[in-house]
Amino acid sequence: MAEESKKEKRTEIAEYGEFGLIEHLTKNAVLRNKSSIRGVGDDAAVIAAGDNDVKVVSTDMLVEGIHFDLSYHPLQHLGYKAVVVNLSDIYAMNAIPEQITVSVAISNRFSVEAMEMLYEGILAACDKYDIDLVGGDTSASNKGFIINITAIGHAAKDRIVYRNGARQGDLIAVSGDLGSAFLGLQILEREKQIFMENPEIQPDLEGEKYLVGRQLLPEARRDIIEYFEDLKFKPNAMIDISDGLSSDVIHICRQSGVGCVLYEEKFPVSEEARARAMKFNIPTSTAVLNGGEDYELLFTFPPEWKDKIEKHPDFSIIGYTTKASAAYTLKTPSGQVHPLEAQGWKHL
Amino acid sequence: MAEESKKEKRTEIAEYGEFGLIEHLTKNAVLRNKSSIRGVGDDAAVIAAGDNDVKVVSTDMLVEGIHFDLSYHPLQHLGYKAVVVNLSDIYAMNAIPEQITVSVAISNRFSVEAMEMLYEGILAACDKYDIDLVGGDTSASNKGFIINITAIGHAAKDRIVYRNGARQGDLIAVSGDLGSAFLGLQILEREKQIFMENPEIQPDLEGEKYLVGRQLLPEARRDIIEYFEDLKFKPNAMIDISDGLSSDVIHICRQSGVGCVLYEEKFPVSEEARARAMKFNIPTSTAVLNGGEDYELLFTFPPEWKDKIEKHPDFSIIGYTTKASAAYTLKTPSGQVHPLEAQGWKHL
Repeated sequence: MAEESKKEKRTEIAEYGEFGLIEHLTKNAVLRNKSSIRGVGDDAAVIAAGDNDVKVVSTDMLVEGIHFDLSYHPLQHLGYKAVVVNLSDIYAMNAIPEQITVSVAISNRFSVEAMEMLYEGILAACDKYDIDLVGGDTSASNKGFIINITAIGHAAKDRIVYRNGARQGDLIAVSGDLGSAFLGLQILEREKQIFMENPEIQPDLEGEKYLVGRQLLPEARRDIIEYFEDLKFKPNAMIDISDGLSSDVIHICRQSGVGCVLYEEKFPVSEEARARAMKFNIPTSTAVLNGGEDYELLFTFPPEWKDKIEKHPDFSIIGYTTKASAAYTLKTPSGQVHPLEAQGWKHL
Repeated sequence: MAEESKKEKRTEIAEYGEFGLIEHLTKNAVLRNKSSIRGVGDDAAVIAAGDNDVKVVSTDMLVEGIHFDLSYHPLQHLGYKAVVVNLSDIYAMNAIPEQITVSVAISNRFSVEAMEMLYEGILAACDKYDIDLVGGDTSASNKGFIINITAIGHAAKDRIVYRNGARQGDLIAVSGDLGSAFLGLQILEREKQIFMENPEIQPDLEGEKYLVGRQLLPEARRDIIEYFEDLKFKPNAMIDISDGLSSDVIHICRQSGVGCVLYEEKFPVSEEARARAMKFNIPTSTAVLNGGEDYELLFTFPPEWKDKIEKHPDFSIIGYTTKASAAYTLKTPSGQVHPLEAQGWKHL
């Protein structure tokens, strides 16, 4: 078999992990066109478009059984979410998404009606965020369901915010609340388990609407990019929270060459998440740091903007950046100090 | 299960087919941003970029077991081909590709070394066609291997060529030769069959390099777009041959509101393909019309350009467009007339 021809050595992909593998595989990729302003390594690529504008391009693949479970993820919601997670990457560059392309591979266990439900969700997200579906590909698969979306946005060249722009002494803020999507997922997984053991018992999601909704039907923070624009404010660095606060703040710090201190008591957590974390006996800070899929925006900015940023009811200032040698640190309310780790939720 | 909630009615996807399904699912997609110049329905989407330029975006998903077979498709070649088929879509718009993003989902049967081979092929294609790999996503899959590439090109706004620009009385030309990739695939499938029945017998591909190469390692026709530019020539309509001449010429005719007449004896067929088709007892015109994966360019143009187009050693004028009511017609050397059909190679 062709794929086995280098049989001498076999390195497992798990040894690298997702980020390490991409970095390893693309280390020989060079940018040779002057229109390629930024390549691999940020939320999205940046491509010159005319003298003053840029296009911003992000792509994400969602695989059944890995990223979603159709036994509790309705297809309309899945279509909506698949769009939103890509838009979130564009907003994280301080840009406005305008187009998407959608590729879908499906096995014949899916009907046309199932595909209609998926596209209903895709088009509902397009409607809500003023996005045009401009292209795509539909293909058979032997097994399972895969959806890949590419989002294209635009911005004035000087509005783009990268991950690597944080400066020592910046404040670190985050929008919305964190950890809810992760706890929503735990609820859905538990209900699935109960249902599989006894199909008579119907899932009880009463009172869990907020957490489950954050998992199944997240929104992207277009409003914040518009607020920044109105404020004539531009963060020094920004990323969206998809892998968990810990991984994502470390992405910014590492690429910017700074360290950070986060204060656990400043983490924005919903009442619902706090109550549910207690029931599940999961520390809320674990859900916040390692949960992911919040699609909130994490950004750093110079302290002189503190008053204006604090005024926004949806922002929490959770820490500050330090010199690189100070590493990535979490301070607990009791004054203890822990190192932040970047492994994301695989280590839970 | 959520996906079954519309259980009343189940329409099989096969009832629509690939093109019908995309059309059906995207019929409610509207273009609301003025930057979206052309959406679904051509080789690529067209997006405004500055005052005079456009970006051109195409996406393609390749699924193991559907689009490729790793038992005879070396991973380097697969990576190369996955890039080339997307570039071909950009050239078919008369545009120049500059960037790609690559999403890959892989099961743990693949090693890091296997991924290195894939990316070797991807980067070799980038090198050959001056493309920058600017982004991507790497994900686990439960089973099999899926690769999705999005290509982004650019052109001056007035250079873009659509499928729908053909006019009655245009001549129809095609680059290179057709049917070879399909015959290469038949050879590989036959050798695989023999090998599976008796693993002692090693594949005998001696003398089949050209046909097998057309299948495993196709090239895209960048040279032709550059030739058009030098000639200050612009086709009225253009498409790349991915589904087979029959389907692809009908795409142009249907979208342009014209009919066509093709002359079977004008079809460009390599010596190797002719000999192999005879051995396999497949009519060469079947390989040409229904084979696909040639990644040659099919274009229509006004008759006054005939002399200049004929001069290029790699172009064949194979027919002309007619009024719409004349339908899509094939004339054989003996003067017989057959209707062309759009079903592509699924009907072989």
